[in-house]
Amino acid sequence: MQFTLEHTDPTTDARAGVLTTDHGQIQTPIFMPVGTLGTVKGVHQRELKEQVKAQIILGNTYHLYLRPGMEVMEAAGGLHKFMGWDGPILTDSGGYQVFSLAHRRKITEEGATFASHIDGSKHLFSPESSLGIQRTIGADIVMAFDECPPYPSTRQYAEKSMHLTHRWLERCVSFMRGSQPRYSHSQALFPIVQGGSYDDLRVKSCEFIASQDQPGNAIGGLSVGEPIPDMYRITKLCCDILPKEKPRYLMGVGTPANLLECISRGIDMFDCVLPSRNARHGMLYTRDGIINIRNAKWKNDHSPIDDHPAAAPTSQLHSKAYLCHLLRCGELLAGQLATLHNLTFYLSIVREARQHILDGSFTAWKENLVPLLERKL
Amino acid sequence: MQFTLEHTDPTTDARAGVLTTDHGQIQTPIFMPVGTLGTVKGVHQRELKEQVKAQIILGNTYHLYLRPGMEVMEAAGGLHKFMGWDGPILTDSGGYQVFSLAHRRKITEEGATFASHIDGSKHLFSPESSLGIQRTIGADIVMAFDECPPYPSTRQYAEKSMHLTHRWLERCVSFMRGSQPRYSHSQALFPIVQGGSYDDLRVKSCEFIASQDQPGNAIGGLSVGEPIPDMYRITKLCCDILPKEKPRYLMGVGTPANLLECISRGIDMFDCVLPSRNARHGMLYTRDGIINIRNAKWKNDHSPIDDHPAAAPTSQLHSKAYLCHLLRCGELLAGQLATLHNLTFYLSIVREARQHILDGSFTAWKENLVPLLERKL
Repeated sequence: MQFTLEHTDPTTDARAGVLTTDHGQIQTPIFMPVGTLGTVKGVHQRELKEQVKAQIILGNTYHLYLRPGMEVMEAAGGLHKFMGWDGPILTDSGGYQVFSLAHRRKITEEGATFASHIDGSKHLFSPESSLGIQRTIGADIVMAFDECPPYPSTRQYAEKSMHLTHRWLERCVSFMRGSQPRYSHSQALFPIVQGGSYDDLRVKSCEFIASQDQPGNAIGGLSVGEPIPDMYRITKLCCDILPKEKPRYLMGVGTPANLLECISRGIDMFDCVLPSRNARHGMLYTRDGIINIRNAKWKNDHSPIDDHPAAAPTSQLHSKAYLCHLLRCGELLAGQLATLHNLTFYLSIVREARQHILDGSFTAWKENLVPLLERKL
Repeated sequence: MQFTLEHTDPTTDARAGVLTTDHGQIQTPIFMPVGTLGTVKGVHQRELKEQVKAQIILGNTYHLYLRPGMEVMEAAGGLHKFMGWDGPILTDSGGYQVFSLAHRRKITEEGATFASHIDGSKHLFSPESSLGIQRTIGADIVMAFDECPPYPSTRQYAEKSMHLTHRWLERCVSFMRGSQPRYSHSQALFPIVQGGSYDDLRVKSCEFIASQDQPGNAIGGLSVGEPIPDMYRITKLCCDILPKEKPRYLMGVGTPANLLECISRGIDMFDCVLPSRNARHGMLYTRDGIINIRNAKWKNDHSPIDDHPAAAPTSQLHSKAYLCHLLRCGELLAGQLATLHNLTFYLSIVREARQHILDGSFTAWKENLVPLLERKL
C-alpha cells in the first residue's frame, strides 16, 4: 500500500492524498460507507460505485465472523468476491463490536471472550484470531485488535486499557509478519491510538503507535459520547504526533461538520454509520441543513429532495413529498433512496473538500459551509 | 388507446399484440409488476425499466387514496409524476382491497362503505368515486368498480353480486363519458367479468361486459382460492366470448406456469403480487424450478443465483450463498435482489412467450417449460 501526499492546506492541517491498494486508488480525504454484513444496507454495489461514488467500503469482522462465517467466506474467496465489490475494503478488528454488541464479554491478556448477540454461542477474539479472520475476509486494510474504553472512563482504566491495546498491537504486528495474505492481494495493518479523553495518554499512545511504523494509523475511542470539543482537541493532538507521510483514519466519526473539522486537523479517512442509519429513519443531510423527511411539513412539498448538482440522481429526480410518503408507509424504497441520498452527500462533501484543499480555498469554504450543515430545516 | 393483434398461435388461443397508450407501447402478452403505494417494493423505477424491463406497472387505488391521499396526488400532477415513472400505469378500482383489506365493509346499491385498515377512518367507494380517484391518480388504464365474491360463494350470492357489478359498470361507463381526464393523457376503462365459479354466470357476465364495448376487458374473481383447473376452464370460457380485437386482462394471476397456461387460452395481460411478495420471503422462480434461497443447502453454494442470460444482471453477478446470507440476516438488499430476480424472470417469460407466439413455436416451448417451472430445487 502506498500513500502519496499531494497537498497540505497552508492555513490548516488539511491534506489531499492518494492511497493506492491492490484494488485501486483512493483519493483522500475519503469517507468509507459501512457495509457491516457484506452489504451497505439498502444500496446495491453498482449504485455504490456509480451513484454514491464510494472508493472504499468498510466491513465488520465481528458480524462477518458470526454470519456467514469463515467457512463460507473462504469458499467464496474472500469478501470482495462474496459481495461482488472489486474496490478497496477495510475491516475493523471486531474489538469495538465485542465491547458494544456482544454479551458476557471478559477481557484477559489473551483477548476477549464473548457470547454472540445472535445465538449466545461463546467465542474468543485475540489479536491473532482477529487478524486471522481478517486474512480470510481479505480486506485491503486490516485493523489492529484493540480495546475501546467507554466514555467516561477513569484515568486508571483508560491507561490500563491503552497498555493492553499496545501489547495486543505488538502481537498483531508479529502475526502480520508471520503470515501471508490468503488471496492474491496484499493487506496493510493500521494500528489504533487509544487513551480515552486524557491528553497525556493520547500523546503516549500516538508515540507508541507511530513507533510501530505500519502503513497507516488510526485514532479510536472518539465519537463514543465525549463532548465534541474534546473530539476535536484530541484529533488535533494525535495528528500533530502521527507521521505526516502516512494516512490517518479517524474511526466512527461523524456528522458532515465533524468530518470537515477533522479534515482541517489532518484526518484523511473516516467511517460512520450515521449517514446510512439516520437515512433509514428519514434524516437527510444537505448543504442547507438537516431535513427530517418524515415531518408533516414535507407531505405536500413537490420540490426535489435535493436539487444540488452533486446530490444523488434519485434525490434530484424524486420529490420530498414522495420520499415522505414512502417513509411513512414503511416502504423499502424509502430506505434505499434516503441512504443513497446521505452517502452521496457525504462522498460529495469529502470530494469537494479535497478539491478546495488542492485549490487553496479549503478554509474559507469550510468556514462558510459548517454553520449551514447543522441547521434543522 | 389502441390494440393491434399481431399474431394468434394456430394450435392454441395465444396472441401477440401491441397496446398503445399515451405513455408508450406495451407488447403483449405482458406481466405488470404491482406497485401498490407508488413503488414496486424494493425496486427503483430505473431498475424497473432497465433491468426488469417492465412496460407497464400497476397502482392500487385503495392504498393510494388512503396514503398519500388525493390532495397530495393532485398537487403532484398524478401518479406518473409523483413516483417518477413515465411508462404506462394501470390502477385497480379499489374494490378488491375493500373486500380483502378494509374493515367493517358494507355493500349497498350505492357502493361500499369501509373503515381504513390503517386508522379505522370511514370511507365510501362507489363506481363514481372510485373512477374520480382514478382520474386523479391518472392511470392510463382504469378499472371498473366491482364486487369480487369470495371463494367459495353460493350460486345465489355469486349471481346477485354479478348483477350488482354489472349495474355498477353502467355507472362507471356513464362517469367516464361524463368526465374528462385530469391530465393531458387519455384514460381507458376496462370492465371486469365476475360470476364466481359458475360457468353459466361467467357466460352471462362476459356477454354483458362485451356489450359495453370498452377498450379492453378484464376477468376478475379468479386466483381467489378456486382449484387451478377451474381457473383455467373459466379463463378459456371467458376468452371464447370476450372480443378478440380487444386486450384481455386476467386479474391477480399467478405463478409462471399459470401465466403460460392462461396465455395459451387467450389472455394478454397479468398482474400478481406473487413474484414480489415471494421474493421478499426468499422464494425465487427460475427456468429450472423454485429455489427457496433461505434453505441451508444454499449457504455455501457459490454458483450464480441464476446464470441464464435473461436473468436479472444482479442474479448473474451474485451467488446463491450471498443472497442466502443477506436474507438470513434480514438485510434490505436481500429483498431488492430477490425482487429484481423474480420480476425480471416474469418479464422474460412473457417476452419469450411472445416471441414463440410470433415464431409459431409457442405450444412446444410451453409444454416443455411448464413442468420444469413448478419443481422445488
